[in-house]
Amino acid sequence: MKSELAAKVERTIRKFHMAEKGERLLVGLSGGADSAALLLCLDELGYDVSACHVNHCIRGEEADRDQHFCERLCEGLGIGIIVRRVDVPAYCRANPVSEEEGARLLRYNALQEISADKICTAHNLDDCLETTLFNLARGSGLKGIASIPPVRGNIIRPLIECSRADIEAYLAERGQDFVTDSTNLLDEYSRNKLRHKVVPVLREINPSLMETFAKTLGFLREDSAFLEKTADKAFEESIIGDGFSRKTIRGLDYPLRRRVIMRILAKNDIGISQDKIELIEQLVNNGGKASVKSECFAYTKSDILYIYNENNRPKSAEDEVVIRPDTVIIWQNRHICFKIIEIDGKFENVNKKFANSCLDYDKIRGVIVLRKRRAGDKIRLVGRSFNSDVRVLMKQAFPAHKRDGAVILADDEGVVLAEGSGAAERVKIDDNTRRVLVFDDRRE
Amino acid sequence: MKSELAAKVERTIRKFHMAEKGERLLVGLSGGADSAALLLCLDELGYDVSACHVNHCIRGEEADRDQHFCERLCEGLGIGIIVRRVDVPAYCRANPVSEEEGARLLRYNALQEISADKICTAHNLDDCLETTLFNLARGSGLKGIASIPPVRGNIIRPLIECSRADIEAYLAERGQDFVTDSTNLLDEYSRNKLRHKVVPVLREINPSLMETFAKTLGFLREDSAFLEKTADKAFEESIIGDGFSRKTIRGLDYPLRRRVIMRILAKNDIGISQDKIELIEQLVNNGGKASVKSECFAYTKSDILYIYNENNRPKSAEDEVVIRPDTVIIWQNRHICFKIIEIDGKFENVNKKFANSCLDYDKIRGVIVLRKRRAGDKIRLVGRSFNSDVRVLMKQAFPAHKRDGAVILADDEGVVLAEGSGAAERVKIDDNTRRVLVFDDRRE
Repeated sequence: MKSELAAKVERTIRKFHMAEKGERLLVGLSGGADSAALLLCLDELGYDVSACHVNHCIRGEEADRDQHFCERLCEGLGIGIIVRRVDVPAYCRANPVSEEEGARLLRYNALQEISADKICTAHNLDDCLETTLFNLARGSGLKGIASIPPVRGNIIRPLIECSRADIEAYLAERGQDFVTDSTNLLDEYSRNKLRHKVVPVLREINPSLMETFAKTLGFLREDSAFLEKTADKAFEESIIGDGFSRKTIRGLDYPLRRRVIMRILAKNDIGISQDKIELIEQLVNNGGKASVKSECFAYTKSDILYIYNENNRPKSAEDEVVIRPDTVIIWQNRHICFKIIEIDGKFENVNKKFANSCLDYDKIRGVIVLRKRRAGDKIRLVGRSFNSDVRVLMKQAFPAHKRDGAVILADDEGVVLAEGSGAAERVKIDDNTRRVLVFDDRRE
Repeated sequence: MKSELAAKVERTIRKFHMAEKGERLLVGLSGGADSAALLLCLDELGYDVSACHVNHCIRGEEADRDQHFCERLCEGLGIGIIVRRVDVPAYCRANPVSEEEGARLLRYNALQEISADKICTAHNLDDCLETTLFNLARGSGLKGIASIPPVRGNIIRPLIECSRADIEAYLAERGQDFVTDSTNLLDEYSRNKLRHKVVPVLREINPSLMETFAKTLGFLREDSAFLEKTADKAFEESIIGDGFSRKTIRGLDYPLRRRVIMRILAKNDIGISQDKIELIEQLVNNGGKASVKSECFAYTKSDILYIYNENNRPKSAEDEVVIRPDTVIIWQNRHICFKIIEIDGKFENVNKKFANSCLDYDKIRGVIVLRKRRAGDKIRLVGRSFNSDVRVLMKQAFPAHKRDGAVILADDEGVVLAEGSGAAERVKIDDNTRRVLVFDDRRE
């Protein structure tokens, strides 16, 4: 008989269109209660599941203990496991990030490098409540209050509607032990306070807290997604040439106006803050000119709002970044990771999400660079007999506010890849390909 | 020099269009820190302010102490004060409500009976945070998470953006003492837990909690209001004759679909619950028939969803309630309070909000009843030379989901008042009027 938890997980997977039977699911397995239960559950439900344990090399002995636990667990279940070691302390010394953030980034990087259709992480309903409370404490909009998204790209969270109590009961029932999980979403300090001091008080007020919260969260998620979608549309409608119609923006209700202005800021790589939003709103209302960040100002010309960005001007080589394999490039607010995958034989095990993000590295002529789209860019996509206008491809592949951040790869002879549309015919992967260049946005 | 708190209150009043200078503001004065500060602040800002203290007769000696404190405070400031005694314990014995709810209801009743343009209550930002957390704990939609509304009808809350710390600092600066307030929004148990156990932990995570929360709340309020407004419009568009277009409802995004279904339920006096919402949604999708409450079922006929309510059928006298002055009638989910106000001389001091809700009681012919609109209802409004169709008036005065709950008063010769539009010419108040019948919805 199917366990209660597995039944719940199956409902969640269906509800959020997380995965189909037959897809290859990769579970990020820390060995903690949540990921252990997730692995067991997905296995019980008959999914094609494998595991990846990322050893963060943070606490040596404990980390090795966790790794061995995961290996034994998978062995017992007959499930394949891949172990990856990442050096979080070294990464954090080299990059200005906290240990939590460094671990998260490297962990997701490691998971994304393994061939699978979907990556499954074990966030549960308690994590959502803690995140909601954390965002409420730290200040947030609806999106933050609505907490962790159930699906994000190829990352799915099948336990997102299960409480920690459900999960622990399931493991107890199966006699399955687990290790104490040391990787978490929030920093230790805030998480502990919320988990041990705040949540128990809320539970005293409402003993069915978790069931109720699951519903509340459902409503908030739907409301938030609807507002974001409506704002995407309003943003598109506000675009006039290189600028934005002040009249259109002024005519929007505040929730959309605010979100449209956030998109304008994001499109121009301007860090979003309430001050900046108000500044742009004032220009939209009253016209004028104002500096929005160094070498970047916003100004109006009759009905149109323009953002003039000194850094956005075509500057021959300066807005290009030469790609070196196995590096993460921070570009347009994204963490883009380039990898070389060596293959022998056919390149068939590529993760679906990379289908449009890879090319034959040995077919590159000269230097390969990452850059924004430029006027006049053309590409002959794989399998096509004609050149496509990259501007049109971008328009098909991305909402307007993401187009400027889309990856264009070019070599000495022109564009070889347009993100969202794929590689050029002349660098396509074929049976003779030995080295594949693949990239991915690694920001979680 | 204007105090910091007064400056903040002034910004809040302007932001939410709460009041104009010259309007008569009535402060509900408990003698607690919040209402004492509110009174001082509004006085400092030059508003035409008076106070009303409601003695709840709950804790005898303490209640009398509070009353005397308020009287002395107003005397010192040269501000007029009216004291009202309401018997909460007696009311709670007679009605199935908690002491908090009974006190709130009678307090708002008492305040609404006093002539003023606006009633000012002293809810502050800490109350909002506690309410948000309470609603999060108990389960809620966005509207509940967005907490206490700054304005609700003629009730305004000028301290809604001021923290309790701001308020206490203001009183300390002015050397103003206050009593310990015993009337509150949430029940003592939950409020104490949230105030003393949860909020301090959130403040450890973010020392500027209240400032940040004020912004968060602003966003949530705006998002919520926008969704409600958009849903009002979608609801109107879904109406086809006596039913609702299933196709229109199906075509809505979930946040609007859910809210439209909630309006359909409310319009038909069906208590809103997630189960009922899902039931209606299923009928909208698949068609069929289902009982939604006793003597009431929903069914579909091709594209149209109908709610058949046995109780809604015209039933001569049965759907009428004979009005007795000074009673609260629970009708269509509303608490409607009817009062006789005796006047001598001109009836000019009537609270603006009652302008469309009063008539000359002595001009009534026979029995006066409260009922729903019936087909064919006509009324000749004050100052008009022609009869108006009540159906049309309702349409102008209310969104569709509120029309069925609108008050129609009729005497033996026909409709004498249509809520939102006003009284009939033949019962209008004039210089000879001695007894005014006035009604009001007392639900807070």
